[in-house]
Amino acid sequence: MNELLQTIENTVRPLIGSGKVADYIPALANVNPKQFGIVVYSNEGELFQAGQAKVDFSIQSISKVFSLTLAIKHYGEDMWQRVGREPSGHPFNSLVQLEYESGVPRNPFINAGALVVSDMNQSRFASPHYAMREYIRRLAGNPKLKSDKVVADSEFEFRSRNASMAYLMKAFGNFENDVEAVLHSYFDNCAMRMNCVDLAKAFSFLANKGYCHHSGEQVISAREAKQVNGLLATSGLYDEAGNFAYRVGLPGKSGVGGGIIAIVPNRFSVCVWSPELNKSGNSLAGIAALEALSDHIGWSIFG
Amino acid sequence: MNELLQTIENTVRPLIGSGKVADYIPALANVNPKQFGIVVYSNEGELFQAGQAKVDFSIQSISKVFSLTLAIKHYGEDMWQRVGREPSGHPFNSLVQLEYESGVPRNPFINAGALVVSDMNQSRFASPHYAMREYIRRLAGNPKLKSDKVVADSEFEFRSRNASMAYLMKAFGNFENDVEAVLHSYFDNCAMRMNCVDLAKAFSFLANKGYCHHSGEQVISAREAKQVNGLLATSGLYDEAGNFAYRVGLPGKSGVGGGIIAIVPNRFSVCVWSPELNKSGNSLAGIAALEALSDHIGWSIFG
Amino acid sequence: MNELLQTIENTVRPLIGSGKVADYIPALANVNPKQFGIVVYSNEGELFQAGQAKVDFSIQSISKVFSLTLAIKHYGEDMWQRVGREPSGHPFNSLVQLEYESGVPRNPFINAGALVVSDMNQSRFASPHYAMREYIRRLAGNPKLKSDKVVADSEFEFRSRNASMAYLMKAFGNFENDVEAVLHSYFDNCAMRMNCVDLAKAFSFLANKGYCHHSGEQVISAREAKQVNGLLATSGLYDEAGNFAYRVGLPGKSGVGGGIIAIVPNRFSVCVWSPELNKSGNSLAGIAALEALSDHIGWSIFG
Amino acid sequence: MNELLQTIENTVRPLIGSGKVADYIPALANVNPKQFGIVVYSNEGELFQAGQAKVDFSIQSISKVFSLTLAIKHYGEDMWQRVGREPSGHPFNSLVQLEYESGVPRNPFINAGALVVSDMNQSRFASPHYAMREYIRRLAGNPKLKSDKVVADSEFEFRSRNASMAYLMKAFGNFENDVEAVLHSYFDNCAMRMNCVDLAKAFSFLANKGYCHHSGEQVISAREAKQVNGLLATSGLYDEAGNFAYRVGLPGKSGVGGGIIAIVPNRFSVCVWSPELNKSGNSLAGIAALEALSDHIGWSIFG
Repeated sequence: MNELLQTIENTVRPLIGSGKVADYIPALANVNPKQFGIVVYSNEGELFQAGQAKVDFSIQSISKVFSLTLAIKHYGEDMWQRVGREPSGHPFNSLVQLEYESGVPRNPFINAGALVVSDMNQSRFASPHYAMREYIRRLAGNPKLKSDKVVADSEFEFRSRNASMAYLMKAFGNFENDVEAVLHSYFDNCAMRMNCVDLAKAFSFLANKGYCHHSGEQVISAREAKQVNGLLATSGLYDEAGNFAYRVGLPGKSGVGGGIIAIVPNRFSVCVWSPELNKSGNSLAGIAALEALSDHIGWSIFG
Repeated sequence: MNELLQTIENTVRPLIGSGKVADYIPALANVNPKQFGIVVYSNEGELFQAGQAKVDFSIQSISKVFSLTLAIKHYGEDMWQRVGREPSGHPFNSLVQLEYESGVPRNPFINAGALVVSDMNQSRFASPHYAMREYIRRLAGNPKLKSDKVVADSEFEFRSRNASMAYLMKAFGNFENDVEAVLHSYFDNCAMRMNCVDLAKAFSFLANKGYCHHSGEQVISAREAKQVNGLLATSGLYDEAGNFAYRVGLPGKSGVGGGIIAIVPNRFSVCVWSPELNKSGNSLAGIAALEALSDHIGWSIFG
Repeated sequence: MNELLQTIENTVRPLIGSGKVADYIPALANVNPKQFGIVVYSNEGELFQAGQAKVDFSIQSISKVFSLTLAIKHYGEDMWQRVGREPSGHPFNSLVQLEYESGVPRNPFINAGALVVSDMNQSRFASPHYAMREYIRRLAGNPKLKSDKVVADSEFEFRSRNASMAYLMKAFGNFENDVEAVLHSYFDNCAMRMNCVDLAKAFSFLANKGYCHHSGEQVISAREAKQVNGLLATSGLYDEAGNFAYRVGLPGKSGVGGGIIAIVPNRFSVCVWSPELNKSGNSLAGIAALEALSDHIGWSIFG
Repeated sequence: MNELLQTIENTVRPLIGSGKVADYIPALANVNPKQFGIVVYSNEGELFQAGQAKVDFSIQSISKVFSLTLAIKHYGEDMWQRVGREPSGHPFNSLVQLEYESGVPRNPFINAGALVVSDMNQSRFASPHYAMREYIRRLAGNPKLKSDKVVADSEFEFRSRNASMAYLMKAFGNFENDVEAVLHSYFDNCAMRMNCVDLAKAFSFLANKGYCHHSGEQVISAREAKQVNGLLATSGLYDEAGNFAYRVGLPGKSGVGGGIIAIVPNRFSVCVWSPELNKSGNSLAGIAALEALSDHIGWSIFG
């Protein structure tokens, strides 16, 4: 497997240069674009890797999966009264659909949906950011993980679009806490720095019926893990979920930091990272790598 | 397995009465709502069934999968220049998105997308309806299958919404043939009458790497079959694909006649039928049956 | 006044060259763009003019005012159940709003609204095109007016967008007649050829409390004339009604043939023509001429 | 004239009871709904009135005309780069159009447009609320006018929808100042308490070529006054501007406090007030009174 990962790295590295690093905040724009890392982590605890697998990066929207599963632990099925489970068919930061659908976001992976989930966690925890950080550290088995304050502050400074969504949901009665407080928690989570090893390990519970074997924690139930994978498969890749199902065929979640995690149910969790993004905001080399991996090993869940 | 199917039938039959038969055309409204059938067909050719598995019904939108795979055979990757692969996030017959996205439908399973695919097949075949009928007969291994002329005529009479979409695409240059001719072909396909056995057999190639073992035909490539399943998983259940992934966890396609087909990759094809629909236009008892089946046997592709 | 009109012509002629002739159908694209005409017709029957005041052109959307007033004669207030009276805030040929607002067009001057009005006239007259032509001939005092068959046929050939709207309204139950028959009537009306003198005379009844003094006909009531002017002021200039109120300050209606009619209530009717259009589809030199006219004589109804 | 106003009051009073007082904030919901006042103020300084003409009420959106004219004094034509002049065709507080049109509101009378205008004034004045209050006092000739702090605070508490719009415009780069600071100014202006006499006098400059004769101030130029009236005629009555032009035929502006001001260019300014609103958010009895007034005296600017 390590050899295969190395081959894939060699295959996709030439793609670097044809994408574009996220630059909506200065703190993200400075990353070295010529990086690539990939890690496969098996349900038996084996770890395979290639490239810059241990270089930390900003997990950004991948954090939405942590928020969601933390909220599921505490709210269960009730949470679906405040956020939907359907693909949105709109850009991840669109307000149009939110207005037409009375402030109930389509799913927990578009920004509005993730903000509602953050609002739920905000209501639940005395110190939401601390609770989330401990949760992520436990899942990754890495007690040193932390958020990048410069990135979080920069995101807060450029918060207008997210603030607009949060206030719109508040206007519809679907937001409980102070908007700015939730935005701080939200950006703190997005600004967590992790590497491919951390992330592959942290999401292994989704490949393993909700059980995280290195922490010994049943994070969510097997049924919930299956459900979350279903949502990832239909809505995890911004407005490219269909294309990802077509090309890769695995549940996954991307972030504008260039990371993508993917789940091979009952077998593996995968994390790939390369900072340059395609037009849909997903890692260009990352998707190519996952496609190659899926093709070579026949991991697609679709046949 | 037959016993399990019987148990499932017993479990979901009480749901009949809480849904609503499609009544947008008179010819469909007359169906007896108290019917339920289910068939599981294995890649080894075993057939399991319960209920009214051999009662014919109108396949309606399930025909979109036949149209798509027929078009894929002839156009390959080129076809994706005229129709997208993403979930729509809008009702299946919406024009809003079509106008904002310049006449390119989001995917081949919303009406606009299926009309474009029908337009492609119309350009390809001298007698499109005949070509499609022969294709379906071959896949189902049933040379007697045919379209219900009363239903097709009734759909044509109430064609306004679909005509509106087709003309809008023509206005954007994404429709080649005469609108009314394509609508006739489209409605003829929708009006095909088949039963659960026919449909489970007809779609077995999607569970079997594109190969239809009873006809001995490699319908599409293994790669294409996997890709079609990915599209079904993200867009096959109207505006309920996310919920279907969450609850059932299989690629599938529904029709307003009350039929649903589902694919268990590399193992089984399934057809369930019950005419009453939920609010999203999918068979109420059908989804419940698939959920029970997936739960009992652990067939979800998501874990 | 003739001198003033001549001065205005001299002032605005240099603008010709910076607009763009309508080219969505070949038959319109061939017009000589370097033409300009203006006519002012007083309620006392005086006629003032400058430029190519007697060159015929395609009246296009100006015909919507004829259709509307003909329908008002026959339907009165009832007609507002099928079409609204509000500005649309969308391009004249948009389907988005029509879908969100259940097939009831916002006003009679966007295409969808004019199609509904044509549908009303279609229901009322045995030979709708003949009835409309006689009506226009009477209002203009010119028995030779007729429709340009080449233009009408070309518009029908490129009817897709309008057909899409008509079918969408039919799907919502807001269209009574055969779509193609109404489209033929609609395009026949749009293709009427008239000159500035014809049009200024034909619309004098709107400046004169509904009374056409040269035909001696009370076309509509004084109250209705006032109401139609109110609608023209808020919705007559495509998506530029606000700008027209701001710059010119008169009720008016434009057509993509480059004609614009404007009403000075209780005093004058005006027609200006120049084929090149601005980005909103209104005659570039025409609007400039009306603005100059309004400025020089203080005709704005707004102060 | 006083007699006519009395007759009109008698005619429209029975309508009270069929509308609905604004209740989106508690401070407005408590108003006694059975009130009606009307004032006509001539360019010669004559004052005619009937009903509760001297009872103060919350001017709400009528304040948008004050903000606009104050901004015009300082920014002139430049201001139209940040806000449009077209009717919106959407509810006054919609975000959909704002998103599609890149954060540039359609006109200064929808909420988003008024917020941008407030942002302009915020940039211009050291103490924006004080500057606005002095401006209004001067126009009304009433040095005692002030804002209702309870109403302003309540509006700020329920600011979510407006905050959402402001942040969306900020995200598009069309908002210069701190969102909360501008909202405070905006709500302070909306919460000004004035009576019909105050308002009729305050807007007399729009009927009088920009000149306020009781303050002796040329508020804006004659040309600008005419232009503002044009904008009021096309966009002043929320999503009912077309209907208002059709029924009343005067430039006007309404507020959810139940006030409406209307301009008879070169002759009169009018203010009518009655708290119950119709479905479009405009005073029910107020519109009926203006229609009766326009009908009786033939004041419509449309004929």
